[in-house]
Amino acid sequence: MKISTLSLLEELDRPEYASMKKAFRKRRVVKDEMIAFPDASENVVFVVESGRLRVYRAYEEKEFTFAVLEPGDIYSSHTGAHVVALTEGSLLVTDIGTFHREMMEAPAVTQSMVRVLGGLLKNAFQIIDGLVFSDSATRLAAFLLSEARAEPEGPTVRLEMTIEQLALHLSMSRQTASTLLADMGRSGVIHKLGRGVYRIEDPDRLNELAR
Amino acid sequence: MKISTLSLLEELDRPEYASMKKAFRKRRVVKDEMIAFPDASENVVFVVESGRLRVYRAYEEKEFTFAVLEPGDIYSSHTGAHVVALTEGSLLVTDIGTFHREMMEAPAVTQSMVRVLGGLLKNAFQIIDGLVFSDSATRLAAFLLSEARAEPEGPTVRLEMTIEQLALHLSMSRQTASTLLADMGRSGVIHKLGRGVYRIEDPDRLNELAR
Repeated sequence: MKISTLSLLEELDRPEYASMKKAFRKRRVVKDEMIAFPDASENVVFVVESGRLRVYRAYEEKEFTFAVLEPGDIYSSHTGAHVVALTEGSLLVTDIGTFHREMMEAPAVTQSMVRVLGGLLKNAFQIIDGLVFSDSATRLAAFLLSEARAEPEGPTVRLEMTIEQLALHLSMSRQTASTLLADMGRSGVIHKLGRGVYRIEDPDRLNELAR
Repeated sequence: MKISTLSLLEELDRPEYASMKKAFRKRRVVKDEMIAFPDASENVVFVVESGRLRVYRAYEEKEFTFAVLEPGDIYSSHTGAHVVALTEGSLLVTDIGTFHREMMEAPAVTQSMVRVLGGLLKNAFQIIDGLVFSDSATRLAAFLLSEARAEPEGPTVRLEMTIEQLALHLSMSRQTASTLLADMGRSGVIHKLGRGVYRIEDPDRLNELAR
């Protein structure tokens, strides 16, 4: 669900949000700093002011990335995921009580939450499909990586076959191939440029899927 | 993330929302009617006015339920999930363009979206954990079902052992048992009443996990 949203950081600079902005304290973070843990008792809400953060869940053998948070994104530490800073940056932090009392009526705030949650959910669907169709998802991701060629706009795969032929080649049903490609598109891993032509938008995530 | 929200249906009845409400058309649904499909080209947004709907993804061998939508919940048909009516009811439907133009500024609308998306995400995390720890999740769910006894407040499990002992009994790590129990709590399948005492809030979902 693509959402056209107000820019939360710009809104927070407007005079009518001055009292809300005071309820945030600034926290600087360094690269690789852990911001949230699944079992943390502290429940805070933060807005990314600068830098990028990765939201993921960690298992004994692997990790799944659910989102990369960017400036203007809002997030709660209490969702059950790990959050780590990918770069240095700064966060605007407040406690959950203040957040509910003072911020849940502000469209810029809830729109940012909708955008972030929608993105997390898209990736969650993709991860679930990948687990259910685990062998197929791994094979498809590995195949796309192996077929990608450098082009001016970024690494691009030109299949030169139909989805049926691709599915046959990778020993999966047409429906599974189609579901997995649609998931990768929705979650921004690949972008379909035309019939059988896909640009790889996020090689790191595609590599994660291929493992 | 528990969100205290405005009631969207009550808000829509207020005079200031009259023009917004006009942008919705009412659609009656019957029990078992399919409301949305993953590959549907039609992209609509609807508010549940009455009745209950199930959001799920279907795979060759099983289904995963992500949410049960109730009156006041808002949802987009374009998320990649199936939606089926569990009961008869009515929806307020609008197209995605009108929705973005006229409704994304209304706190009651975005708050409902945050609540629904947050619920979907909690269940998605649980489903992912269940798949990653598939044998363990199945064993734990089956064990809880087998141990549940009827009590006045609903079916209740009294473990009478520590998480360590439970984990040992079910041949999983303490961390896995703890993660799975926390997931079930967060997504409303069970409710922890005290040390080792859990009420089963959603026997259907627990049965789904035990399969």
